[in-house]
Amino acid sequence: MKTDAERHNSKISNANLEMKIRNLGNFVIDVLNTNESPYFDIPIRTLSNVEFDKENLKIVMKDKKSRRNFLNIAHTRKFTQTLSAAAVIYKELLQTEKTTSLRDLFYMLKRTIPDTKINLVDEQIESDNAVEDLELLLDDLRENLHVNAKKKGSVAGNVVIKDGDDIIAWNKMGSGGWAVPSNVENIEFKGVDAKFVLFMEKDAVWNRLNEDKFWKKNNCIIIESGGQTTRGVRRILQRLNKEFSLPIYVLVDFDPWGIYIYSVIKYGSIGLSHLSDMLSTPKCKFLGLNGNDIEKYGLKKHLIKLKDVDIQRLEEMKNYVWFKDKNDWKEQFDIMKKFNAKAEIEALSARGISFITEKYLPEKIANKEFLD
Amino acid sequence: MKTDAERHNSKISNANLEMKIRNLGNFVIDVLNTNESPYFDIPIRTLSNVEFDKENLKIVMKDKKSRRNFLNIAHTRKFTQTLSAAAVIYKELLQTEKTTSLRDLFYMLKRTIPDTKINLVDEQIESDNAVEDLELLLDDLRENLHVNAKKKGSVAGNVVIKDGDDIIAWNKMGSGGWAVPSNVENIEFKGVDAKFVLFMEKDAVWNRLNEDKFWKKNNCIIIESGGQTTRGVRRILQRLNKEFSLPIYVLVDFDPWGIYIYSVIKYGSIGLSHLSDMLSTPKCKFLGLNGNDIEKYGLKKHLIKLKDVDIQRLEEMKNYVWFKDKNDWKEQFDIMKKFNAKAEIEALSARGISFITEKYLPEKIANKEFLD
Repeated sequence: MKTDAERHNSKISNANLEMKIRNLGNFVIDVLNTNESPYFDIPIRTLSNVEFDKENLKIVMKDKKSRRNFLNIAHTRKFTQTLSAAAVIYKELLQTEKTTSLRDLFYMLKRTIPDTKINLVDEQIESDNAVEDLELLLDDLRENLHVNAKKKGSVAGNVVIKDGDDIIAWNKMGSGGWAVPSNVENIEFKGVDAKFVLFMEKDAVWNRLNEDKFWKKNNCIIIESGGQTTRGVRRILQRLNKEFSLPIYVLVDFDPWGIYIYSVIKYGSIGLSHLSDMLSTPKCKFLGLNGNDIEKYGLKKHLIKLKDVDIQRLEEMKNYVWFKDKNDWKEQFDIMKKFNAKAEIEALSARGISFITEKYLPEKIANKEFLD
Repeated sequence: MKTDAERHNSKISNANLEMKIRNLGNFVIDVLNTNESPYFDIPIRTLSNVEFDKENLKIVMKDKKSRRNFLNIAHTRKFTQTLSAAAVIYKELLQTEKTTSLRDLFYMLKRTIPDTKINLVDEQIESDNAVEDLELLLDDLRENLHVNAKKKGSVAGNVVIKDGDDIIAWNKMGSGGWAVPSNVENIEFKGVDAKFVLFMEKDAVWNRLNEDKFWKKNNCIIIESGGQTTRGVRRILQRLNKEFSLPIYVLVDFDPWGIYIYSVIKYGSIGLSHLSDMLSTPKCKFLGLNGNDIEKYGLKKHLIKLKDVDIQRLEEMKNYVWFKDKNDWKEQFDIMKKFNAKAEIEALSARGISFITEKYLPEKIANKEFLD
């Protein structure tokens, strides 16, 4: 695993990765020269190969691998797809210093193998899997392979960054904020004057905080991702926490989905367990809404009854190994069950439009009322 | 309908609106003083009251109204909700100069009527309808009532704006761009140096164009909305077209959904027909993808078979009055039907990662290959 200093230096990172890809290719050639079948040993991406690392507080991948053998006809197609994806990424992305999306990469790989009627890939899931294979083989983020995820979310605060040739001040972004790009690996933080970072799932809440200049009055950074966090937002949170020791507070709905957003930011996700090192922020804290807020802030009449799908998700959440041994979280899940209801952040508006910025958030933060 | 100059002057706009809301309240009091039942006459929001204005090229609302009478028990609830929404908007939004979301407004209105067990609103659809009633009664955008829609999308180009106290240069936004806020009514354009605006539905395409500095090389503005256009993006497009006579080109997938995005930007939508004046841009042009691009740019092997739901939507689109008399569009729908397939913008990446910025777009724009 590379150090952060390395990861953030695009040129070193590129050179390293390019060397790793060349090594992958050379390995295939070397094996071919011995008249053997070339192969890759790829970590297995199933639940059975995932565990929770209690010491480092993150979901990690165990070390079971499966061999993908070119001359095993059950493997030939996948082997060829992964190797071709490596070639396209090397030549058309890294060498040209361009980035692209998974959908575009699918089209870049979708070609007919000469003298056959066989397409290298027919469905995007095949090229997606090839990229995931490469993340595992090369032990790096797909963003560093120049394959970007969905872009969403915006940010404001007393921060100055350098992105390409542009110097961008997050405190001069008006009502919109700076749009967080999908790839934040090469962003340089030039100045960070903030005491903490407040992440919120909802853009409407961000708007309220931005309009009330919450980030200015409380010297913090506010960032939203319009729902589930994107990889870009997760990377920014991790970088601000690691590089500047900023506390990260998470503000989501009091429902299983909101708590899961927190869980993913903090511990990583099962699907991306091999990337927890780069995407998770174990030190982040859950600010709210929590079950105790409901009585305390008079939100009881704004509870929303749980649906079957919420209850099912709640049961799953309760049993996650990183929640089930924690009494604080057991209490939260019990409250949700007792009320048989969830509550939304926007419910605070029933107490007044700026109740959230003038009362709720300052009080919670001053009293350090966080769940961990 | 207010003039643009008025609409963009927040203070005049606020004062006008506040006066209109006071007039609404005074009218109710005047009627009450005659011992009659107060009422509102509200334009009917059904398809039967919508038509296409061929001269001005937009979907408009006809003038059928229905009377909502307080003492008609079938109307009492809705009348009260609309009046209460007006009061909350007046006192808690306009007078405090704050904005909010529909979801927050729901909670602000969700209270029990004193001495009863009846909630003023039980479901968000009721407060949403009250806001829509007010848009119609006051003849203004809900953004000017300080009720914001979803925020999404980003923009880059040689443009300087003033938003609140911040001066924001859209050409210094790095890889992210400026996040387009939900409410762009009070943004002042301080400098616009661009020959046209290119709107695209997909953030991945925007990333490619931004990375290739397409907006710099072609002196244009690039803007995306990550799918269906938001009201904020539609207002920005209209303002750039009206205030700076900039041509607007729309870049979407060649499928019924992409063409509908174009249709909404150009003519407005049936659901918001009363706002077409403020949200539509009749002069915008469809740049692509179009059916002829498929052969011309070698995308035939990247066609995707239409699903039943696509075919159904295609049939609906063909019959829209603003498409069905146009031979160019008839041809497009016929091509889609003949191929029984759609094509995505990303398919251009099969021709090379920067094919879109170096060949496709410059060629289409130079040859003015637009559909109208």
